[in-house]
Amino acid sequence: MTAYLDHAATTPMRPAAIEALTAELARTGNASSLHAAGRAARRTVEEAREQLAAALGARPSEVVLTGGGTEADNLAVKGMFWGRRAQDPSRRRIVVTAIEHHAVLDPAFWMAGHAGAEIVLLPVDSAGRVDLDALAAELETSGDQVAFISVMWANNEVGTVSPIADVVSLARRHHVPVHADAVQAIGQLPVDFAASGLDALTVSGHKVGGPHGTGALLARRELALTPVLHGGGQERGVRSGTLDTPGARSFAVAVDAAVREQPELAARLTALRDDLVARVRAAVPGALLRGPEPRAAGAPAAAANRLPANAHFTFPGCEGDSLLYLLDSAGVQCSTGSACQAGVPQPSHVLLAMGVDEGDARGALRFSLGRTSTAADVDALLAVLPGVVDRARSAGLSTLTARSAR
Amino acid sequence: MTAYLDHAATTPMRPAAIEALTAELARTGNASSLHAAGRAARRTVEEAREQLAAALGARPSEVVLTGGGTEADNLAVKGMFWGRRAQDPSRRRIVVTAIEHHAVLDPAFWMAGHAGAEIVLLPVDSAGRVDLDALAAELETSGDQVAFISVMWANNEVGTVSPIADVVSLARRHHVPVHADAVQAIGQLPVDFAASGLDALTVSGHKVGGPHGTGALLARRELALTPVLHGGGQERGVRSGTLDTPGARSFAVAVDAAVREQPELAARLTALRDDLVARVRAAVPGALLRGPEPRAAGAPAAAANRLPANAHFTFPGCEGDSLLYLLDSAGVQCSTGSACQAGVPQPSHVLLAMGVDEGDARGALRFSLGRTSTAADVDALLAVLPGVVDRARSAGLSTLTARSAR
Repeated sequence: MTAYLDHAATTPMRPAAIEALTAELARTGNASSLHAAGRAARRTVEEAREQLAAALGARPSEVVLTGGGTEADNLAVKGMFWGRRAQDPSRRRIVVTAIEHHAVLDPAFWMAGHAGAEIVLLPVDSAGRVDLDALAAELETSGDQVAFISVMWANNEVGTVSPIADVVSLARRHHVPVHADAVQAIGQLPVDFAASGLDALTVSGHKVGGPHGTGALLARRELALTPVLHGGGQERGVRSGTLDTPGARSFAVAVDAAVREQPELAARLTALRDDLVARVRAAVPGALLRGPEPRAAGAPAAAANRLPANAHFTFPGCEGDSLLYLLDSAGVQCSTGSACQAGVPQPSHVLLAMGVDEGDARGALRFSLGRTSTAADVDALLAVLPGVVDRARSAGLSTLTARSAR
Repeated sequence: MTAYLDHAATTPMRPAAIEALTAELARTGNASSLHAAGRAARRTVEEAREQLAAALGARPSEVVLTGGGTEADNLAVKGMFWGRRAQDPSRRRIVVTAIEHHAVLDPAFWMAGHAGAEIVLLPVDSAGRVDLDALAAELETSGDQVAFISVMWANNEVGTVSPIADVVSLARRHHVPVHADAVQAIGQLPVDFAASGLDALTVSGHKVGGPHGTGALLARRELALTPVLHGGGQERGVRSGTLDTPGARSFAVAVDAAVREQPELAARLTALRDDLVARVRAAVPGALLRGPEPRAAGAPAAAANRLPANAHFTFPGCEGDSLLYLLDSAGVQCSTGSACQAGVPQPSHVLLAMGVDEGDARGALRFSLGRTSTAADVDALLAVLPGVVDRARSAGLSTLTARSAR
């Protein structure tokens, strides 16, 4: 039996989303074609857009369909920078937290190298919470030079939920647009685009039980957004490329279900995650939960400070990769951090920004739950984790010895 | 009964590609994850990459998976420009034919506005054939300032096949890389990346019976290619974004089948298309075939000068949109040109570049065949076309009268 504890990397497709996708596969029609088949495809796409908009508190015209979350983040970062700078060349500062996903950080740093952007990295505290005072100070001193702010709704590694409302409130005073990568938040936290006051928000399909290769950027109509993909002029000229009709429909079905099931799922996964955290702490001396301490059971949902499905530990003296492989051999699948950076043997930029030292950061493991998670998954983890940590510690010590011998 | 004559816009998915896609949908695993589920997904992606490479004469490491043809074209145009210029700032000229798809032209012109590119538009003759003398002259006078050349393998509107070998041969003398958009060529013409001598080549999934939202840029390893989508560093850092495992597998199955069936399909569709052309000419006085005159039956396949599946006419005195809607009402689905620009009431840039005057260009219709096309489709077209043209001509004349009355 396999325990899949890596839902933050990708989660099983929802049967309803599979059904919606397969129902479309046998149909033909380019949604930009004017004949009946094209118009039928267009109707399917527009119904999907309406469903997405309704689920996320947006207007249909605010939904820009993309090929995934990374593309949506690139469109947000590059599109807002180029768009804003075209209106006001003095706005060259990009303000981001130090713990953004690489799909935000890497475009931002690329814009620094290629388009004259200046990056302002907002520090975070030891739990990964963005420093609002630093943001206020930045806006106070340089607000008229800030192109936009990007703060992820919830962190993919340590699960920290950002104070989006506070960020938006500060930004508004300085007329600075705000983008949030909400890839991990949708389905775990209530996300309402209009109510959030955000100007742009990233959504991914495969993280909520939809198909890979689907995503969207929600973007206010008045937001200046320069396209990243040019061509046929689809998506009101902001994102060219043939519309993926089956993908759009399936993506919308998944997001709709994820949002409807969110309150119940969040409650169930919070309890499961809290059990996991308590048992790991009890079973593995030295295991340190990273990210915010979950609120006490019974705290109001609005007070969520950590993704319900996320647990993240460092295990001192261990290499995360060794833990990962040993657990995998025992049938427990998890991650050392972001799947997108997995395989790159360097400590997480998120943990380093939180002040974790490099050695401890190397001993990180993320356990992320999802719709299909059960108590049996947690049992499976706990059945093998103590032994695995022991073995990894011995391996870690040999590595250290070998290193000092050199 | 409906006759679908718009396969160039999109074509029905192949049953084998649907099967490959649906087989993967129930599996979970991010191809960047290191556990067993992730490694299984990675294996599926890498097998798909090998299958794509083998079908297209490329090495697996030359296949960069993208979210479609438009993204691949954007990566080629922007990536090659930024990449080449980083090596040699004096190379700022982008040489493209005047009849490229908007997914090439629009990125190129955007680079002119935003990145200092100078666009050199190569003229074409009345059949849409690129002027090789103009290319030779450009390379002779400014070869050391050319960043790259992009010449589509075959035109999506009028079906003209480009002399890729001649273009590559000229470019090599000046050490200028060449990209070709082969979206329409795959499955209709033999396409071998290594044999072509090209440096980059665009492929799209849904044009060959694969899924929407899939595509690839074949790119030589030594080609300097700046990413368009930054993030997790997938696809050797050239294209970030979670790998679409089901999409990759289905895409590869479709391309493999399209390439294997190409000789037989090309022969069958050439005959069907020639029949369509002859009958339209006979039935509709004034109908003018645009693009090259198809070679006589029995000419060697290598001599193909026009896509086997393409027929394109202008009908003097008609508005293409009127023709399209009238045909659609009669159950015949076709296009006025590129679906990607459909709905935009302006004459085709391809026809204008071929010297067609604006009035005539407005009376354009493209009939494009595909794998599922039969003689019955052509019969259905011919059964209604003459009457439709008569009605559209009356409507066109009333429009002209109304216009001159103003």
